[in-house]
Amino acid sequence: MKKYCYGICFLISVAINILFSIHLYVGDGPNQEISCRSSLTWSEKAAAEAEAVAAISCSGHGRAFLDGSISDGQPVCECYGCYSGTDCSELSPGCAADANSGDPIYLEPFWMQNAADTAVVISGWHRMSYEYADDPMMSPELDKYIRKLHSVAGNAITQDRYIVFGVGSSQLLSAAVYALSSQNSSSPSNVLASTPFYHLYKDQTRLFNSKNFVYRGDTNSWQTNNTDVIEFVTSPTNPGGELKKSVTGGKTIHDHAYFWPQFTPIPGPSDHDLMIFSLSKLTGHAGTRFGYVVYAVLASSFFQLSSVRYILNIFLCTLIIYRWAIIKDKDVYDKVLNYIYLANAGISKDTQLRVLKVLKVAMKADGKPFFEFAYNQMSDRWNRLTSVFSKSTRFSIQPRHPLHCNFFHQTRQPSPAYAWVRCERQEDNDCAAVLKAGKIIGQSGSTFSAKDRYARLSLIKSQDDFELLMQRLTELVSLENHNIEIM
Amino acid sequence: MKKYCYGICFLISVAINILFSIHLYVGDGPNQEISCRSSLTWSEKAAAEAEAVAAISCSGHGRAFLDGSISDGQPVCECYGCYSGTDCSELSPGCAADANSGDPIYLEPFWMQNAADTAVVISGWHRMSYEYADDPMMSPELDKYIRKLHSVAGNAITQDRYIVFGVGSSQLLSAAVYALSSQNSSSPSNVLASTPFYHLYKDQTRLFNSKNFVYRGDTNSWQTNNTDVIEFVTSPTNPGGELKKSVTGGKTIHDHAYFWPQFTPIPGPSDHDLMIFSLSKLTGHAGTRFGYVVYAVLASSFFQLSSVRYILNIFLCTLIIYRWAIIKDKDVYDKVLNYIYLANAGISKDTQLRVLKVLKVAMKADGKPFFEFAYNQMSDRWNRLTSVFSKSTRFSIQPRHPLHCNFFHQTRQPSPAYAWVRCERQEDNDCAAVLKAGKIIGQSGSTFSAKDRYARLSLIKSQDDFELLMQRLTELVSLENHNIEIM
Repeated sequence: MKKYCYGICFLISVAINILFSIHLYVGDGPNQEISCRSSLTWSEKAAAEAEAVAAISCSGHGRAFLDGSISDGQPVCECYGCYSGTDCSELSPGCAADANSGDPIYLEPFWMQNAADTAVVISGWHRMSYEYADDPMMSPELDKYIRKLHSVAGNAITQDRYIVFGVGSSQLLSAAVYALSSQNSSSPSNVLASTPFYHLYKDQTRLFNSKNFVYRGDTNSWQTNNTDVIEFVTSPTNPGGELKKSVTGGKTIHDHAYFWPQFTPIPGPSDHDLMIFSLSKLTGHAGTRFGYVVYAVLASSFFQLSSVRYILNIFLCTLIIYRWAIIKDKDVYDKVLNYIYLANAGISKDTQLRVLKVLKVAMKADGKPFFEFAYNQMSDRWNRLTSVFSKSTRFSIQPRHPLHCNFFHQTRQPSPAYAWVRCERQEDNDCAAVLKAGKIIGQSGSTFSAKDRYARLSLIKSQDDFELLMQRLTELVSLENHNIEIM
Repeated sequence: MKKYCYGICFLISVAINILFSIHLYVGDGPNQEISCRSSLTWSEKAAAEAEAVAAISCSGHGRAFLDGSISDGQPVCECYGCYSGTDCSELSPGCAADANSGDPIYLEPFWMQNAADTAVVISGWHRMSYEYADDPMMSPELDKYIRKLHSVAGNAITQDRYIVFGVGSSQLLSAAVYALSSQNSSSPSNVLASTPFYHLYKDQTRLFNSKNFVYRGDTNSWQTNNTDVIEFVTSPTNPGGELKKSVTGGKTIHDHAYFWPQFTPIPGPSDHDLMIFSLSKLTGHAGTRFGYVVYAVLASSFFQLSSVRYILNIFLCTLIIYRWAIIKDKDVYDKVLNYIYLANAGISKDTQLRVLKVLKVAMKADGKPFFEFAYNQMSDRWNRLTSVFSKSTRFSIQPRHPLHCNFFHQTRQPSPAYAWVRCERQEDNDCAAVLKAGKIIGQSGSTFSAKDRYARLSLIKSQDDFELLMQRLTELVSLENHNIEIM
């Protein structure tokens, strides 16, 4: 009996040995595998900090950030509009819906769903130099992905062109005007845009007070006999969302900030001389300040390599940091890059790294998951918006026309970033004021050189903002249907 | 006998179980503790990627980066000048020493030594908005640390002033000229600088072709009866490293890019109207493109809040992204920020986060470890440099004058970022060419509006670059002492 007992105990002990061995060398599941496979050293502290901050609860109505204000040793919640409290749980009653800015927070959920693939770790010594190994200013890897992006989205031609990055839409617009403007001080180039348009076209052109160009107003009022024209062509329009073509036949600056499948059907790739895009509207990373210009130089027409022209184009490229330009002419490209190098102007390498990571995720599976997510967000918001406005006779929004989209391979309606609201009643000639009285903050028509009978409402902000906008619009239309004037 | 065997086997098995248990629950040392203590989730993949790339050996003569070109699934080494091969181990014989650019790699070792504290993890959804919670464009935390930085370094007054960030020295210089220039198109402001000076002062002023200002040349040739002057005061000078004061008595733009304890003794805090600093020279993060302007507006002298003046100052602030300005006037500050917000111009939030992290480390222990490291680097290089030039009659370098440094609390010699070499022989009137023949690449005096008898050599590049420069200089001086002409 004792012998049997020894035997059983021994077998049990050996069995436990085997189990321990399996546990030790195979692990006990995915979680264990992740944490113990790790042999992180210098990056672990920063990673833990970032995760701790991301885990701070702000009730879904705010966010804590690594560089936020500190209280009790940790960053505090930064609450979205209308919410307050340490955990952003307090909704301010009667708070106005803010649909003013084009802050593209509508894509935040996508990036949270793709957290592991879009996190970036930057070492203290990451790219301290002004230069990359094979390029003075721009990440060749990012260049490659930007070309892929255009090929995937099918919205711009990049083949046989050079790409230059840049920053800041306001500077870029001015720089583009500079690059295309006359060299003749006694006869400056005439800058035009079609109403309604983004106010910076006018403000920035005037700001320079240059001898080389002058702002002339709306394209409709322009005499066609003067051909020294630089025309801003916004396509899709902001606001409105319509695809547009040049009307003057002059040199053009195509502002394609919203020419992405989530906002408009893509009928085909754009192939204009100078096209401005904005990455902030594409991926929603407005805070990263990375947009781009597709700058296609026609070999011999307006782009003569005189010294002045050279300098003006240099100016374009030094100003368009964080944007990119696609240039056909290799000589121009080399000289522009050389100047940028000498000027110590440049593009933050940290930002280029982050954009690379974000674009890689956006382009997974040929961009289908990303653009479908983005399109569904916009499309759902438009469905709800049109449902509310269909009940109103006091307010109308822009009509939308279905088109075949080469990206989604089907006919779809546009879902623009902004609603362009018209107040229909005779007396409502200040539409933004009417909306404001209904606790809705929009931008006046005159901001876009249009009539104040119009107002722009942003549809790309956070879900909280959109829900409140829907609530306030519903209240406003409901008042109208009960024949109660609010103003 | 069999019974004893059972017993011994059982005891051995139990002993093994105990060892397994100890191993499993106690771990096998500090390394195990680090890896299994971690409960990282979404950040771990990015952290592991960053560490794997940092661990790629490039023989100390190059660096692999996350966004580098990919070969066999991992980024390749980017070799420093004169080195090549997959691991950068091959030194090109007879390679010229490149002392041309101001690429401040000399501080890379400091950041590698402080890897854990300076790593940054950026989530995919980090600050997607254009705005911070309490500020449209700028991180309040970074604002706080910038003020501390000036207080610690003792090199600029920030009290009772507002701070605005900006980017890009070239744009900034132009923008500063714009902000200070005349509003009278028929009588533009006169822009001046003292030779030798950074060529962008001239190039960028001319580039704008504005009706409001015109570049007039050297301060020495200027008639003092015209008071509508905007003077660039570079202090310390680039090249040269001397502390300077205004000579015209007009409005001034103080370029303080090198006004840090590692380059010059700090006699006291600077308190001028408009001061330009550059963070790239302070911490060596040139690739991050974060510099700053200390912009102190005098209440009523040149800063009248007419609409044109307002616009010009707006222009300053939209252009100086990634730099910061310290402004006394609250009204101006508010309007400038409001415009920046409306213009959607801004500063990359990723970059602001990284700069915050870097500054926090630089300012540990009141900046002592950081500035001492940086000063020792520069000081050692100057000791070796002067030792070589002391043996030469053909070449001389600028004299240096000791001053009391308020930061180090002792009298020290300046250790400027650049050597300003003079070729003493009558026939050596192109000094850069003489150096080039000796396999040393510098910048000609004429690049700084000085004579070509001078050339600038950069002393802030990597240790590899500096060692090669020392070698080539030693060879050149040695040839001279053996009475062998090289040109």
